[in-house]
Amino acid sequence: MKRERLIYLPLGGAGEVGMNAYVYGYGLPGKERLILVDTGVTFPDMDGAPGVDLIMPDLSWLEARADRLEAIFITHAHEDHVGALGHLWPKLRAKVHARKFTAAIARLKMEEAGQPLDAVVTVDPRPARVEAGPFTVQFVPLSHSIPESAALVIDTPAGRVVHSGDFKIDLDPVVGEPFDDAVWREVVKERPVKVLACDSTNVFSLHPGRSESTLAGPLAELISAAPSMFVATTFGSNVARLKTLAEAAVAADRTVCVMGRSMKRMLSVAQETGVLGSFPRTVTPEEAQEIPRRNLMLLVTGSQGERRAAAAALSRGKYLGFELREGDTFLFSSRVIPGNEKDVLRIWNNLSEMGVRIVDDAGGLYHVSGHANRPDLEHVHRLLLPDMLVPMHGEHRHLSEHARVALEGGIPAAVATNGTMLDLTGESPEVAERIETGRIYLDGSVLIGALDGIVRERIRMALNGHALVTVILDEDDVPMGEPWVELMGLSPTGLGGRPLNESMEADLAAWLERAGRKVLKNDDRMEEDIRRMVRQLAMEEIGKKPEVTVVISRLVAE
Amino acid sequence: MKRERLIYLPLGGAGEVGMNAYVYGYGLPGKERLILVDTGVTFPDMDGAPGVDLIMPDLSWLEARADRLEAIFITHAHEDHVGALGHLWPKLRAKVHARKFTAAIARLKMEEAGQPLDAVVTVDPRPARVEAGPFTVQFVPLSHSIPESAALVIDTPAGRVVHSGDFKIDLDPVVGEPFDDAVWREVVKERPVKVLACDSTNVFSLHPGRSESTLAGPLAELISAAPSMFVATTFGSNVARLKTLAEAAVAADRTVCVMGRSMKRMLSVAQETGVLGSFPRTVTPEEAQEIPRRNLMLLVTGSQGERRAAAAALSRGKYLGFELREGDTFLFSSRVIPGNEKDVLRIWNNLSEMGVRIVDDAGGLYHVSGHANRPDLEHVHRLLLPDMLVPMHGEHRHLSEHARVALEGGIPAAVATNGTMLDLTGESPEVAERIETGRIYLDGSVLIGALDGIVRERIRMALNGHALVTVILDEDDVPMGEPWVELMGLSPTGLGGRPLNESMEADLAAWLERAGRKVLKNDDRMEEDIRRMVRQLAMEEIGKKPEVTVVISRLVAE
Repeated sequence: MKRERLIYLPLGGAGEVGMNAYVYGYGLPGKERLILVDTGVTFPDMDGAPGVDLIMPDLSWLEARADRLEAIFITHAHEDHVGALGHLWPKLRAKVHARKFTAAIARLKMEEAGQPLDAVVTVDPRPARVEAGPFTVQFVPLSHSIPESAALVIDTPAGRVVHSGDFKIDLDPVVGEPFDDAVWREVVKERPVKVLACDSTNVFSLHPGRSESTLAGPLAELISAAPSMFVATTFGSNVARLKTLAEAAVAADRTVCVMGRSMKRMLSVAQETGVLGSFPRTVTPEEAQEIPRRNLMLLVTGSQGERRAAAAALSRGKYLGFELREGDTFLFSSRVIPGNEKDVLRIWNNLSEMGVRIVDDAGGLYHVSGHANRPDLEHVHRLLLPDMLVPMHGEHRHLSEHARVALEGGIPAAVATNGTMLDLTGESPEVAERIETGRIYLDGSVLIGALDGIVRERIRMALNGHALVTVILDEDDVPMGEPWVELMGLSPTGLGGRPLNESMEADLAAWLERAGRKVLKNDDRMEEDIRRMVRQLAMEEIGKKPEVTVVISRLVAE
Repeated sequence: MKRERLIYLPLGGAGEVGMNAYVYGYGLPGKERLILVDTGVTFPDMDGAPGVDLIMPDLSWLEARADRLEAIFITHAHEDHVGALGHLWPKLRAKVHARKFTAAIARLKMEEAGQPLDAVVTVDPRPARVEAGPFTVQFVPLSHSIPESAALVIDTPAGRVVHSGDFKIDLDPVVGEPFDDAVWREVVKERPVKVLACDSTNVFSLHPGRSESTLAGPLAELISAAPSMFVATTFGSNVARLKTLAEAAVAADRTVCVMGRSMKRMLSVAQETGVLGSFPRTVTPEEAQEIPRRNLMLLVTGSQGERRAAAAALSRGKYLGFELREGDTFLFSSRVIPGNEKDVLRIWNNLSEMGVRIVDDAGGLYHVSGHANRPDLEHVHRLLLPDMLVPMHGEHRHLSEHARVALEGGIPAAVATNGTMLDLTGESPEVAERIETGRIYLDGSVLIGALDGIVRERIRMALNGHALVTVILDEDDVPMGEPWVELMGLSPTGLGGRPLNESMEADLAAWLERAGRKVLKNDDRMEEDIRRMVRQLAMEEIGKKPEVTVVISRLVAE
């Protein structure tokens, strides 16, 4: 006889850093009632997804079971947790629950995608509860690098689950609530924790994490010592950092000017929702023009080298009336996310050419991470005493190391990457099923599947170039005129400097001349032969095999 | 009256890490006799140069003055110093001078490009001299991460120049000569150093560099403690590291199997030229199959995550009969060059999925850099006491910082990036001229200019997709049949799920219908209008503006 079970199914975020989407379910196998935690994005790059705007988890499995979806919960407002909401919600259509600041950002995502704002419900933190089928969910405030991050305490008939969301142990996070052991002791006392699904991002960082508040001193010193204009960039959503920077600026007799849409938006939402508290007065770029450089601080977006953001724009020359010059200081109050190194270094070198002094995080003086390091994870393991641990939010190496740490501490753990459904009903996590998962691309205004082949075609054209051949035949299958070849992204000249397209046209014309009726009647056959000849000739002449598109036009009598 | 002058002109390697090519000249302005130091490559990436095989400096300036080129010198056999030789030599045709091991690699480069091997001359180290017009050049052995790296002592009528090449201060480099203060004191005593052109790569590393020999102990310990198969990857040209690893393997009762063409080649050239000395016996992959895992070490290429190299292949599954599994250890005895992080992490995660233990350089235990850190650079400044310093081999931020360090030490210095010609005749470096420089791509088998637009077309297709439109007109400029649209790398469906190409064809057909004689007679006008319509419709339907190729065929009466 089948028994009710508690399941966990990551559809994004497990086996990668980004696009978080975790499903929990409870009920008879195949009939579980479901909740979804987070709907995040990943950012594409030229290597994997050129031209793509956003990457999102493929939630097909959940969409096919949307009638069983009780609710969506958003732990916090980072893009990798809420960024896909507007795009994915239409196929899910469940109520979205989040705390005040996060809900405000979630509504902006819904608004941008033309979805109903009232689908997003603002929830108070514990002891407030959300009932969602067999689940009762509480938001427990945690410290992270954005205001109002929350863990979810998820009560089910099979026991209590704690889904950590992203967090660090910070007793003085400057903005928002600290990590509070007492609260967690209460949670555990109320009901023991069966499962801890836990952030794994920093499991390889062996020293205890440092508090956001430790940055105030060094930043104030740096900013007040700067001889001319001071520019600082950090993650736009790190409202606490923005506050620390701005307050240090004011203490150093500087006025603050914020540049960059995402940063301004985060600040204004943080102010509107009351999470920010006080923040120094800021001026517009126009007003800032009038202020002596020595009395100015620009707070700008683009700490990851994003080409369209303010930092990159300033490094290229005049931007919003400002031009950096010798004597200015540019602080990266951030770390470089792997993959962004070249973009960041491009900015550094541009700034170096301008004679600007560049300051990076200097080994932690001017930046701290938002994720719990290994000793802090171990502290949380001991604090929550879960029956089992499910590592999440990390690449395979992070999950696997986190599982190892848990096992060493005597806690059963299992690595489950995207698509691995765990049954958490028993004493330790068991693999219940493997689900097909994948990625969806937002490409312009349409959603396409990562495996649809569309982006693969683009990558192939980028690597190999593209040759187009047009052939026209009359109604008797007789070629009319010569074939025509256009080359895109290929050397126009081949061996001996002869135009490559002309060489191809000559070869194709000669072949058409020789080709029999049988070939000329058969579009597929002609296309295949032409493609092969073009690729072979290109290989001989320029050492590359291009993508080939053949257009065969057959004129019919009117 | 014009006076003879000593000039320095970087055509590659200054303002970037890679494709080193430095020109020195002596004589009347515009009539200087010239030498070229190094002819290196840079490796392309998907962001900047998709599909390109190699990036080389554009030596047009030098090619136009090849009659004044006395000789080419290669400091050492790294790809960024010798990799472009075979491709660039045909337009220079001067004798190439290098020490034995480097010359052997240089000849391989010439051979691959079908150039004459006897253009490469093997030179003994100092006191041997090469006379090249007004220049007398000596090779002074230095320690680096490849055997036989050499600085050039270049005597000119205007004084002595030391061109450092790449180096570190290593008193026990395992393979090759140590850095020897005594030799340099002799050089300085013989004739004071007017100019030091100096490696800047590690100027931001503030601690003294460590010797290659310090790795032997930790590596031996790690390798002997490994419970099953041990795989190590490092830079294939780091022959000293290969030797340390192989000897540690033998001490741990392991047999060594080398995988990867470039590594095998470096080892065999090092053996043939006698620079390697002893090296443990190696076995082929077939022979290695027969050896118990506990007694085996694989030495493999691909420390930078190169997708075709052995490390990546092993991380993907079976390779040359080997499949990694739980209990195996995989060591990255290397650091990740910025830009390669994602490729390396991909391998790590694959290995993590296989249950393989991954060991990285662990903060220096298992890898040391081949470049001089800041304290070592300062040591060399004091040792050589040059009248002036020209920082080279680095991005702008490196050059600029190195110049700052020199100036602080009382040495005049100037930052000269590619194309900045310095006059070194006086007391301090003066900018003499700015030369147009650039990059050449090896694309398949042809050389193309980075600014030719060919690769830009490929990037555009990758970002925007490609739409092809064919229109056929009869001899009276009357459209025959309907226009035909093919899409590559674009969503096949637009708004409402309608096929995008059909929407375009319908719109274009309607437009052709309406278009007057004047338009239909004018190919340029038609092409422009069609392109604009296709881009606009695509923008409306899928939110992207594709690249568009329009082929207009006009049938003429036979």
